[in-house]
Amino acid sequence: MPSSTTSEGRRLPTFADVLDAARRLEGRAVLTPLLHSDALDRMVGGRLLVKAEPLQRTGSFKFRGAFNRISRLSPDERGRGIVAYSSGNHAQGVAAAASLLDVKATIVMPANAPTVKAQGTLSWGAEVVTYDPEKGSREEIAARLAADRGATTVAPFDDPDIIAGQGTTGLELADQAAALGARLDAVLVSCGGGGLIAGCALALKERTPMAGLYAVEPEGFDDTTRSLEAGTRVEARREARSFCDALLAPRPGELTFAINRRLLAGGLVVSDDEAAFAMAAAFRHLKLVLEPGGAVALAAALAGTFDCRGKTVAVIASGGNVDPDTFADALRRPA
Amino acid sequence: MPSSTTSEGRRLPTFADVLDAARRLEGRAVLTPLLHSDALDRMVGGRLLVKAEPLQRTGSFKFRGAFNRISRLSPDERGRGIVAYSSGNHAQGVAAAASLLDVKATIVMPANAPTVKAQGTLSWGAEVVTYDPEKGSREEIAARLAADRGATTVAPFDDPDIIAGQGTTGLELADQAAALGARLDAVLVSCGGGGLIAGCALALKERTPMAGLYAVEPEGFDDTTRSLEAGTRVEARREARSFCDALLAPRPGELTFAINRRLLAGGLVVSDDEAAFAMAAAFRHLKLVLEPGGAVALAAALAGTFDCRGKTVAVIASGGNVDPDTFADALRRPA
Repeated sequence: MPSSTTSEGRRLPTFADVLDAARRLEGRAVLTPLLHSDALDRMVGGRLLVKAEPLQRTGSFKFRGAFNRISRLSPDERGRGIVAYSSGNHAQGVAAAASLLDVKATIVMPANAPTVKAQGTLSWGAEVVTYDPEKGSREEIAARLAADRGATTVAPFDDPDIIAGQGTTGLELADQAAALGARLDAVLVSCGGGGLIAGCALALKERTPMAGLYAVEPEGFDDTTRSLEAGTRVEARREARSFCDALLAPRPGELTFAINRRLLAGGLVVSDDEAAFAMAAAFRHLKLVLEPGGAVALAAALAGTFDCRGKTVAVIASGGNVDPDTFADALRRPA
Repeated sequence: MPSSTTSEGRRLPTFADVLDAARRLEGRAVLTPLLHSDALDRMVGGRLLVKAEPLQRTGSFKFRGAFNRISRLSPDERGRGIVAYSSGNHAQGVAAAASLLDVKATIVMPANAPTVKAQGTLSWGAEVVTYDPEKGSREEIAARLAADRGATTVAPFDDPDIIAGQGTTGLELADQAAALGARLDAVLVSCGGGGLIAGCALALKERTPMAGLYAVEPEGFDDTTRSLEAGTRVEARREARSFCDALLAPRPGELTFAINRRLLAGGLVVSDDEAAFAMAAAFRHLKLVLEPGGAVALAAALAGTFDCRGKTVAVIASGGNVDPDTFADALRRPA
């Protein structure tokens, strides 16, 4: 088990926190299905199980952590509202959770966020403040807004309640795989700041301890992969670009990395073309809409970055918020 | 309850047959989720529940009836193989069921069937015989093949075991709605030959008898709607065209219409543009891939053909086998 605090004294979430989050989310979050495709099994030469978080409320796993976090605010904190910054999925998760809990939400989003994500956030009644990602720092803008208003900042990943909420994805996955009689050899999880995989690791190490857990990142944003190798947090390359807009966090979180360095088997890196191929395969064989960042774990399996032959492997498809043009382009790329 | 035979003496399936089909399908068919979207609810002014059959094995509900039918063949019949004709979804359902039951399948398909459907059928090891839909009759070609080989013809809809198998979709839907505490006011179901809605009607009239059941058809192929109005089976218009390739059956089935005329509240008709809009809405808000024919029930709700205001309405999204270009075109149509 991980120790209960980081060396800086910050509280680390535990498996008990994931179980508690699951109780809070019951009836609010969707228990998303674990999909399977005979055709994908043939492609990888193994058994592939796909946890379908695009079918989650707001189209990604982010609702889980946001609801868990905001539902724990005191009445006084709720009255003063919350502030968040996000490229889009956390934004929508926070906006939906805040709306359901009757809390005013202000979200700082980059001006170049996918339209579907900006509109989704607005549809939940959140106030959206945009900034130029080439110039401003979203953390600073959000911190100033929160200070001005006495509001609570809901961090995108480096927060015990966010991590525990995202971990309910892994808890469900383990239960669903067990119900199928499947013994998981590995679980592949998309990784930006590392909140989803850290939370899932807390659950999976309890429920399916023999499965190896792998963080999957887009090329150029392999900060967690390289940090795991180095044993300490390192930054993504400054000049990197990827169409996986959900996974562009520049460095692992402090809490997330403290968990991930102990519980993960390693990191895997996929190209944008491999992610696009996975989007096309999910369209064809799963009938599921994946956004680029939501497709990287499936991409690692389909591209052979992780060798699935003879194994039972679960991948988390983490989100499906993608603009039509980006999606159509991915379907047109040569396989 | 419907009487047990038609006036011509053919056996009609009953609710007991649907329950028996459900037992046969357990562990072979997917228990597809009943999806929900806050955004779609806002669009229709009611509560919309979407039964997601694109997530079924082979990407449509057709696997249910095919497996139920083929699993009842005698060892001798299995040895002589089966023949089916289909524009694509029944083809894939039959090919998959036959493969799982180790039965040789020959499928007669139109040369202009969507590529994804032809390739899906071949991927299950079926033999595919193509014909020109402007010239040949698929029924005659299939009948000749079956006679030559001593094979059993697996009809696409007008068969008691096919109808009962498709009805498991409605059985699951009723159970899932009840688990949510939802009292259904209406259920909208896509309709080609009428097998899906006839089977669902057998289940829904037992499980949720107050819900009105509506067949939804594409413009020009409203043969069931007009047959329900006339009280007798009438044909679709000869010159009609629609991109809903799964719903182009020219007339209601004898068995399906005998059930539907007693149990349905009526028929609804949607345009290709309305179906395309529903495909785009499902992409955006449900993250679910719908083919044109699979989208017509949702289209009837979103276009207001059926007024959902203040009601709880379930729609069956019946399939998701669509070529990338057709899908991309639907996303680009103005809303």
